[in-house]
Amino acid sequence: MATITGPLSGDAKNTVAEALQGALVDLIDLSLVAKQAHWNLIGTHFRSIHLQLDEVVALARTHMDTIAERAVALGVNPDGRAATIARTSDIQQPESGWIEDGKVLATITDVLDGISKRMYERIRATEEADPVSQDLLIAVAQEIDKQHWMFQAQR
Amino acid sequence: MATITGPLSGDAKNTVAEALQGALVDLIDLSLVAKQAHWNLIGTHFRSIHLQLDEVVALARTHMDTIAERAVALGVNPDGRAATIARTSDIQQPESGWIEDGKVLATITDVLDGISKRMYERIRATEEADPVSQDLLIAVAQEIDKQHWMFQAQR
Amino acid sequence: MATITGPLSGDAKNTVAEALQGALVDLIDLSLVAKQAHWNLIGTHFRSIHLQLDEVVALARTHMDTIAERAVALGVNPDGRAATIARTSDIQQPESGWIEDGKVLATITDVLDGISKRMYERIRATEEADPVSQDLLIAVAQEIDKQHWMFQAQR
Amino acid sequence: MATITGPLSGDAKNTVAEALQGALVDLIDLSLVAKQAHWNLIGTHFRSIHLQLDEVVALARTHMDTIAERAVALGVNPDGRAATIARTSDIQQPESGWIEDGKVLATITDVLDGISKRMYERIRATEEADPVSQDLLIAVAQEIDKQHWMFQAQR
Amino acid sequence: MATITGPLSGDAKNTVAEALQGALVDLIDLSLVAKQAHWNLIGTHFRSIHLQLDEVVALARTHMDTIAERAVALGVNPDGRAATIARTSDIQQPESGWIEDGKVLATITDVLDGISKRMYERIRATEEADPVSQDLLIAVAQEIDKQHWMFQAQR
Amino acid sequence: MATITGPLSGDAKNTVAEALQGALVDLIDLSLVAKQAHWNLIGTHFRSIHLQLDEVVALARTHMDTIAERAVALGVNPDGRAATIARTSDIQQPESGWIEDGKVLATITDVLDGISKRMYERIRATEEADPVSQDLLIAVAQEIDKQHWMFQAQR
Amino acid sequence: MATITGPLSGDAKNTVAEALQGALVDLIDLSLVAKQAHWNLIGTHFRSIHLQLDEVVALARTHMDTIAERAVALGVNPDGRAATIARTSDIQQPESGWIEDGKVLATITDVLDGISKRMYERIRATEEADPVSQDLLIAVAQEIDKQHWMFQAQR
Amino acid sequence: MATITGPLSGDAKNTVAEALQGALVDLIDLSLVAKQAHWNLIGTHFRSIHLQLDEVVALARTHMDTIAERAVALGVNPDGRAATIARTSDIQQPESGWIEDGKVLATITDVLDGISKRMYERIRATEEADPVSQDLLIAVAQEIDKQHWMFQAQR
Amino acid sequence: MATITGPLSGDAKNTVAEALQGALVDLIDLSLVAKQAHWNLIGTHFRSIHLQLDEVVALARTHMDTIAERAVALGVNPDGRAATIARTSDIQQPESGWIEDGKVLATITDVLDGISKRMYERIRATEEADPVSQDLLIAVAQEIDKQHWMFQAQR
Amino acid sequence: MATITGPLSGDAKNTVAEALQGALVDLIDLSLVAKQAHWNLIGTHFRSIHLQLDEVVALARTHMDTIAERAVALGVNPDGRAATIARTSDIQQPESGWIEDGKVLATITDVLDGISKRMYERIRATEEADPVSQDLLIAVAQEIDKQHWMFQAQR
Amino acid sequence: MATITGPLSGDAKNTVAEALQGALVDLIDLSLVAKQAHWNLIGTHFRSIHLQLDEVVALARTHMDTIAERAVALGVNPDGRAATIARTSDIQQPESGWIEDGKVLATITDVLDGISKRMYERIRATEEADPVSQDLLIAVAQEIDKQHWMFQAQR
Amino acid sequence: MATITGPLSGDAKNTVAEALQGALVDLIDLSLVAKQAHWNLIGTHFRSIHLQLDEVVALARTHMDTIAERAVALGVNPDGRAATIARTSDIQQPESGWIEDGKVLATITDVLDGISKRMYERIRATEEADPVSQDLLIAVAQEIDKQHWMFQAQR
Repeated sequence: MATITGPLSGDAKNTVAEALQGALVDLIDLSLVAKQAHWNLIGTHFRSIHLQLDEVVALARTHMDTIAERAVALGVNPDGRAATIARTSDIQQPESGWIEDGKVLATITDVLDGISKRMYERIRATEEADPVSQDLLIAVAQEIDKQHWMFQAQR
Repeated sequence: MATITGPLSGDAKNTVAEALQGALVDLIDLSLVAKQAHWNLIGTHFRSIHLQLDEVVALARTHMDTIAERAVALGVNPDGRAATIARTSDIQQPESGWIEDGKVLATITDVLDGISKRMYERIRATEEADPVSQDLLIAVAQEIDKQHWMFQAQR
Repeated sequence: MATITGPLSGDAKNTVAEALQGALVDLIDLSLVAKQAHWNLIGTHFRSIHLQLDEVVALARTHMDTIAERAVALGVNPDGRAATIARTSDIQQPESGWIEDGKVLATITDVLDGISKRMYERIRATEEADPVSQDLLIAVAQEIDKQHWMFQAQR
Repeated sequence: MATITGPLSGDAKNTVAEALQGALVDLIDLSLVAKQAHWNLIGTHFRSIHLQLDEVVALARTHMDTIAERAVALGVNPDGRAATIARTSDIQQPESGWIEDGKVLATITDVLDGISKRMYERIRATEEADPVSQDLLIAVAQEIDKQHWMFQAQR
Repeated sequence: MATITGPLSGDAKNTVAEALQGALVDLIDLSLVAKQAHWNLIGTHFRSIHLQLDEVVALARTHMDTIAERAVALGVNPDGRAATIARTSDIQQPESGWIEDGKVLATITDVLDGISKRMYERIRATEEADPVSQDLLIAVAQEIDKQHWMFQAQR
Repeated sequence: MATITGPLSGDAKNTVAEALQGALVDLIDLSLVAKQAHWNLIGTHFRSIHLQLDEVVALARTHMDTIAERAVALGVNPDGRAATIARTSDIQQPESGWIEDGKVLATITDVLDGISKRMYERIRATEEADPVSQDLLIAVAQEIDKQHWMFQAQR
Repeated sequence: MATITGPLSGDAKNTVAEALQGALVDLIDLSLVAKQAHWNLIGTHFRSIHLQLDEVVALARTHMDTIAERAVALGVNPDGRAATIARTSDIQQPESGWIEDGKVLATITDVLDGISKRMYERIRATEEADPVSQDLLIAVAQEIDKQHWMFQAQR
Repeated sequence: MATITGPLSGDAKNTVAEALQGALVDLIDLSLVAKQAHWNLIGTHFRSIHLQLDEVVALARTHMDTIAERAVALGVNPDGRAATIARTSDIQQPESGWIEDGKVLATITDVLDGISKRMYERIRATEEADPVSQDLLIAVAQEIDKQHWMFQAQR
Repeated sequence: MATITGPLSGDAKNTVAEALQGALVDLIDLSLVAKQAHWNLIGTHFRSIHLQLDEVVALARTHMDTIAERAVALGVNPDGRAATIARTSDIQQPESGWIEDGKVLATITDVLDGISKRMYERIRATEEADPVSQDLLIAVAQEIDKQHWMFQAQR
Repeated sequence: MATITGPLSGDAKNTVAEALQGALVDLIDLSLVAKQAHWNLIGTHFRSIHLQLDEVVALARTHMDTIAERAVALGVNPDGRAATIARTSDIQQPESGWIEDGKVLATITDVLDGISKRMYERIRATEEADPVSQDLLIAVAQEIDKQHWMFQAQR
Repeated sequence: MATITGPLSGDAKNTVAEALQGALVDLIDLSLVAKQAHWNLIGTHFRSIHLQLDEVVALARTHMDTIAERAVALGVNPDGRAATIARTSDIQQPESGWIEDGKVLATITDVLDGISKRMYERIRATEEADPVSQDLLIAVAQEIDKQHWMFQAQR
Repeated sequence: MATITGPLSGDAKNTVAEALQGALVDLIDLSLVAKQAHWNLIGTHFRSIHLQLDEVVALARTHMDTIAERAVALGVNPDGRAATIARTSDIQQPESGWIEDGKVLATITDVLDGISKRMYERIRATEEADPVSQDLLIAVAQEIDKQHWMFQAQR
């Protein structure tokens, strides 16, 4: 079977592989958690938050593809299966059932805060090893921070 | 906290709730498994299958929203969290790492075959209880069957 | 003068004619009531509800055409004149003047609840007589139920 | 409850309010009558007239929104409920049932002729009181006159 | 050679196969007959009918693909070759040469009437065997009936 | 250096020049104030108001161009430099830092109220001198009044 | 033969008829003269002027239709035949053959200046008789003046 | 002043210049005559013919540009001024005032017949001299013939 | 009944009529054969060939309309009925049932090869009689040859 | 009142806040200065420069939003009010009145040169503190430099 | 290895192969030379010429594909490698470094003049051998001549 | 003659100039080599690779413009002439004539591998000198690596 080789090897490759896999898990789980809230949301601000959560889902889906395809281009296998997400995600899960709008704002603000912090660690970790991967992570962080602000602003 | 009431109640509501939650899990997991294959695929038919898997992802994402929003409209809470998917999905998971194109075709054919079978059970189960939910499940089945044919055809 | 003949006759035709005329009156009046609220709405949630009411108007206008044209295709004359709507509509009318947002949410929720109930009766009534008309009514019910959920969710 | 204040008050406001409410009733009833004819039309010129009636519906719907929103912007409540239309409209109603194409052309020509005449009265009435409302009524009259010509031309 | 398997087998599969092949022949032949009339039409209503016939062609082409691909998804081979159409179509063929507009309206009305009748038989025949195929046939019947009305209306 | 000559001269030109320059300053400053609020807004209605403020910015940008280009077409130099805006604008400026949503609604309502009043003076002032400029100012007033209503409605 | 009747009669109708026919001749001849220059232009500023002349053609073609259709809506026959244009146009004709860019700028500036002057006369003439026609002429004058400025500005 | 030189010279250039100028006059006058009929048309087939005449206008405008720009590319000055059209056009002019639909069909059929005949002469005349110009004329003839058929077909 | 007359007569007309009718039969049958293969295809190259066959169908449908409408414009009746295609087509028909991808490539290559040869004969045959028809046939031949190359290239 | 917290604090936050506020002032003032020149421009190169200045306005408006929203996402209040721009901008202001094209090219070249220099200082200043903000400033600098070249190139 | 066979053979094929390869080299080199000038251009007419050169690049890229794919369809291998272009192109190369606008106009006019002359030779050469290839070359010549005119016109 | 000055000078400018010119040559030659393979490709995977090669051409064309325009913005002359590409490109050239699909995959993989390696050297080389140019090169490298993976994956 053919193997994919990319521009990195050794420690650099391992460092970047870890950062990209971590970002992938964050983004896939963000898409699932945001959909969960999008559906089970309830409260007087329903419509605004319902729509904004779909913008979060859209950004998570766009970037998960970019991140995973960067991994493959480096010869690293991304793992986005449900069990992997469930086992390795650092995102605090919402409870099942209806979620009131204030609760959603607090939860998603926390989720985005955590993802942002981890993205900055990944940005620092990949700076030496791979400026191309770092650039993709910077783009993710910018959009995560923007959503983080918007969810804070409407609490 | 407000509660959502819809046109069903009692057994009918329970029957439909179960069918929709089952369909939701199938569709979310299908989107994850198809992306996993989309990224880790390798082999001479790479490009055709890579593109077709993204059509499967698109159909899964479109229908998961319709199905989940039907559940909410009935006053039923959909659950699409990673742990729920990992624990309750009936889809046979692909192994991690590179997957050769022949293997992908076989795997996705099996996955779609299983989903199709379960969708027909749900179509039968909801016929009496809720023709509106049944109509949505029929639409899912039609597209699943079409992809099932196409993956079989290129083995 | 030419007459239009369609695939039905006798009791089946009468049953379906009644169901379609009823649905038509509901949809036309829904479009008028939702516009009335869209214009006279007032309150802190003005913008969200103002926009969502226009989605209700759009769905009512789309489906009133489908339903009326199905009637004509069966050789049945739809009647959508103002006097007919005013006289035969079962929709509780809003008072004139400004309507506060909480009142709008309650009113529209009730209106949609009533329409949904009547649509399910029509779905049952047409099942034997005409599966094509039933299919159109199922599509109406699905969108009415979805709006019904969303208006409930933001009370 | 908040009240909406606009740039007018006293007699000017009353004059404009009356003109806008009159225009609103004309436009909503025009949209209903044109749809009624669109559906129940029969005759060798069916297709041309069927399509042109939908252009009339589209213009009526576009302008009813502009007119009603101008009223609200002036602090005046528009009233577009079915009973109000049925009671206060000056438009001669078509009979129920099939309408032959020649009859439709004659009826709609008369309807548009009456609306045009009333619009010119409103244009004169609002000239002093509110040039902004007048400008919107001028735009309505221009399109009504154009349709009036086209329906005359094909008799 | 690989074979395609779908969700049906035995009698159910045979019943549905027959219904879908019949619908396919009707739709392909409708597209050919409507084009024939579109080209050879003559008369004062030329333009309206010329354009409307292309709407019929468009609907026939869209649905022939849906129907044929449903057949394949069930493991059934659709047959749309010219000889098959010529031999098995139940559609009364127009004569060669110029066709006057009144003749075209009568002919196409008859053609659509026949197709409608056969579609309702297929809808009944597939109800038990395959609700997914039935749903596709219902969608075809709705559009055929609508065109049937429009061609009748302008006679 | 070439000079631009237009259809006006003398007093008429001076009157119109003053009206257009005044409208230009109002519109440019409105675009800046609305962006300031769009960015520094905070509160539970963040999303609705954040989006609506960008509609205000868009209308201000569109009309500032129309107004300034009308001035140039008359041979009058529009002045839209920051110092001119800062020195001559009649718009009450928001304070720096975060602005709560209720405060934003009140501020923007006042800003739009003042602009509306000044636009009506300009409409009256230009009636004799230049019906073309008056027509552009009427169009501005209509959209300002509409936004004025919407900001009032959600207080 | 049917005749078209509109909202005007007597002197008012004659006044407006004359204004609209004059505007129509100006606009048709402007479209021909601008195309003539668009094709025969030569000089270092070829590309800018070549493109801008097509904007003039586009505006002339759009407004000639609006003006002519207003005439018809009033029951007045517009006359846009070549001989009528050649005989009644007040536009100074360019010579045949190549035209240098400076000459084109001077010529088109003069042409637009003349049209603008005549449009203002028509705006004054129609104010009493028909505010709807006046409004259309105001829209023409605004765009003519804008092009007049732009051609002057680049001399 | 610069002169434009192209690939032709001598007799070939003269032959082609004459053919292109002739085609230009035909196309400009066709656009004027078709608009004249589009506006002054009256009769029961008003809408179909009104719309089709605008298709003729569109084709005439598109091709007049192609033909004139081919002339310029050959160093030949096209002449599209009103007086040139009025003096040199071979197209029989319609009378002023209302034109009944049957008359329009007969007139436009004749106009298109004449243009077609002249285009074939130009196609023959340019075959040796310039296959590029001939190719453009062939494209014109094809669309003229198609419109010629359609106007004949609805007489 | 009206008759359509075009620019040709006598032998020229007969020659072109024969060429166009032949091309029409080829193009209609190509669209049917390509759809047949599009549906019944099987094999590892399924997706590429399935998609490319739809490009062939699209080109056949586009050109059959151009060719048939050229015939009508010449006063010649095109005949595209199923029986005519079945009886007069020179295209070798595929067998019923599944067709393996290699077989499809070989079959379609042969079909396109035959059509290309016949198109070149028609191009030669029409050169004298009608350069306009020849130009349309040249356009067909170019696209047929391009598809012919692409099907050969992937064998 | 809620406060917005982002990923930075202390000196890093202050450094980035200063850089972003500086960039915001540059971009808002660039949009005003470029519009001023866009309107008051005169000279033979009017059209090219008039259009290019609007591209500068568009880029300034796009980036001012990105920069201000990054500031807010960091919990920093952007200040874009007219008085702030007038007081703190480093951009040399154009004089009022007509500006000849050569003068505009020189002025805008200088303005862009100054902005570019300041952007590079901000890029260096933010490198350590916040790679995300730095990335946005790099994107601004790239487009400023490109416009700087283009204005230089046409002097 | 498969070989591609097309409709030509022997001398005809050789003649056409030479013409198409020559056209391909001209078009690829034109795209490179025009880009070189697009980038290194300087002078007061920078913007107009910069934009127009990209239109030349676009036309060269579109036609190089058509020409090369025609060659392949004939079984002839196109050669578009850099060394082939550098060695066989007849286009006079621009010097490196900045190129003033007057120089660019002269250079590109010459380049287009040469290409036009060679295209006419190829049109003549392929007339007998292959009318399809000739038709593609005629389309190239028409656009080259048009650009040739435009570059001449602005010298 | 004007000279272009940008933000860099001395060694920094030289370093960046060399990196950008190297990237430009790589991208132009990539576009030529990928087109060569796009045209001369043969083999069972023809369609997939034919389409993917055009994606490579598109990316090469987009980035060559960005890179060359960055050079100009720095006051550096890009050189993209055929002779420069032929003499200085490091890309291994494909042989003339048909190229089998496996050979194409191997060749393009190697070409992309070489370009990727050189881009990383340029990213390192420009880090200090110019972060803006570096950012553009990072964007190129990311897309080259992605295509490199995809070509490897299907070998």
